[in-house]
Amino acid sequence: MRRRIDGKAKPIGSLGHIEELAIHIGLVTETHRSRLGRAALAVFAGDHGIVAEGVTAYPSEVSALVAQMILDGRAGANIAARAAAAEVFLVDAGLDAGLPAAEALIEKKIRRGTRNFLHEPAMTEQEALSALEAGINISARLKKLGFGILALGEIGIGNSSAAAIVTHAVTGLPLDKLVGMGAGCPARGLDHKRQVLARAYARAPVRSGFDALREFGGFEMAMLIGAMFGAYQHRQILLIDGFIATACACIAVALEGKIRDYLLFAHRSPEAGHGALLEWLDARPLLDLGMRLGEGTGAALAIPLIRMAEGLLNEMADLPGEHPPP
Amino acid sequence: MRRRIDGKAKPIGSLGHIEELAIHIGLVTETHRSRLGRAALAVFAGDHGIVAEGVTAYPSEVSALVAQMILDGRAGANIAARAAAAEVFLVDAGLDAGLPAAEALIEKKIRRGTRNFLHEPAMTEQEALSALEAGINISARLKKLGFGILALGEIGIGNSSAAAIVTHAVTGLPLDKLVGMGAGCPARGLDHKRQVLARAYARAPVRSGFDALREFGGFEMAMLIGAMFGAYQHRQILLIDGFIATACACIAVALEGKIRDYLLFAHRSPEAGHGALLEWLDARPLLDLGMRLGEGTGAALAIPLIRMAEGLLNEMADLPGEHPPP
Repeated sequence: MRRRIDGKAKPIGSLGHIEELAIHIGLVTETHRSRLGRAALAVFAGDHGIVAEGVTAYPSEVSALVAQMILDGRAGANIAARAAAAEVFLVDAGLDAGLPAAEALIEKKIRRGTRNFLHEPAMTEQEALSALEAGINISARLKKLGFGILALGEIGIGNSSAAAIVTHAVTGLPLDKLVGMGAGCPARGLDHKRQVLARAYARAPVRSGFDALREFGGFEMAMLIGAMFGAYQHRQILLIDGFIATACACIAVALEGKIRDYLLFAHRSPEAGHGALLEWLDARPLLDLGMRLGEGTGAALAIPLIRMAEGLLNEMADLPGEHPPP
Repeated sequence: MRRRIDGKAKPIGSLGHIEELAIHIGLVTETHRSRLGRAALAVFAGDHGIVAEGVTAYPSEVSALVAQMILDGRAGANIAARAAAAEVFLVDAGLDAGLPAAEALIEKKIRRGTRNFLHEPAMTEQEALSALEAGINISARLKKLGFGILALGEIGIGNSSAAAIVTHAVTGLPLDKLVGMGAGCPARGLDHKRQVLARAYARAPVRSGFDALREFGGFEMAMLIGAMFGAYQHRQILLIDGFIATACACIAVALEGKIRDYLLFAHRSPEAGHGALLEWLDARPLLDLGMRLGEGTGAALAIPLIRMAEGLLNEMADLPGEHPPP
């Protein structure tokens, strides 16, 4: 791959990270001329029982409102996807509300929200497995529809709490480093959020990826992790969004280390814990635009960079006299 | 504008730099609902007499070869523009070769390359004025064709030397900070490049923007500066590429300070002098992808961010109960 890219009509290395992306595409798809097909932004949505403890600025109802706004084509996810020529899918993994049927809706609800993990596991083992399996199947289905690029994002009031505690469990990073504002500071302050999470972890001091997911995770997180494994299996290009999606990546890597090199991190969020997770994963995101909206907005905006890398492989002229491998 | 954006259905400030871009679009176009129209990547090409002094790794012939590759749709500019859904125009401002007619070619050749500025001014006053005027007219013409977004880049073997010395003249920054590899290190080394430029500046120690352009600049640079002023006049969104285009921005700002706030800097180049110029301009580029190819590739890749900001203004849902100005 390196030789092929260095044989292109440009100073060696002059396309920087785009060249690394081109190599990644070649390795993932195992060909020198990859046609990746369409790009999808899949937004996984779910609600969280922990919201009852006052750890968020918004009530759970907002998750379904935002999901509906995505189905109406008027949310952040939609404007980012349009800017990147991607199609949006909204996956109901576990919203605490029903959504009317819509073309962009993938209905996979496991349950109406997780249980309150301060007192009991967020989900049963069977629910966690079902969510992972549904995610794997979503990637397979999108692959069949011609989507070779998957940008993954999420919606879920309360999921910055879930993300902080699951990553605390699997990475060993202190909660202080992982707890941030999320969509907005809770009325009772960040200290309250930290204390609730510390008490919850004391209830179930688990360390494995699967146990952390089951004890503290969300259905949207489990399904997003499943989608990563599905994309890995089907050789789709995977773009990971901000803090929550990166927490999912930590769980995925804890479950199966081989997936790490498969993941592309799209955007560095200002959310407090994101930097620490990226460091743990040894990841350098492609973009740094100060966004912290979620909904896969950061992942979507990196799609044009993938398209440029694809163009480098397929369309850019070769240096005269060079004969790169076909 | 701020109130309108804060009335959108998202946590306040959560779209980071995209919100700043939306405000910029609103201020430039003087409307709350801007339809920017099509996006153009205009690549200005010219040759440089200073190449005779051995300051580059490539011969002047390469400028026209790359220009032809752009017209053939197979250069870096083309793959970046396709990734960003932009159309490419190649402006022959002063190549030392003829190009066959092509749809994407804007033929405005002032002269076959500049004079060798080690010994004499690179261009006459009349040539400089003609190039500036041609650039202004190009923006006007693109505006008439429906292009509300202009990404500006360049081609020109030798123009990292020209960019270093013109910015040395107008910013007072030392040549040591401004001289870098360009497309590649010259055979006789960077010290030789520095020495040639220091000798040239000793011949004509000018300090004004126009004098620096006339003494040391390139026709592609002068025309690119003209295009900035044309876009300013016609309220087009302007995206400035890497080191050379940023040097042009320094000249433009030296000519007319009011243009500074109008310019969006797209990409931080690893070229040595770019950081110093950005600091002088107090600019923070949108992207940092390690690219140093030129051809407007960095500027083009920022277009999707403009599109997202446009979508934020025009398509994103408002918070219920809010009634922003129409």
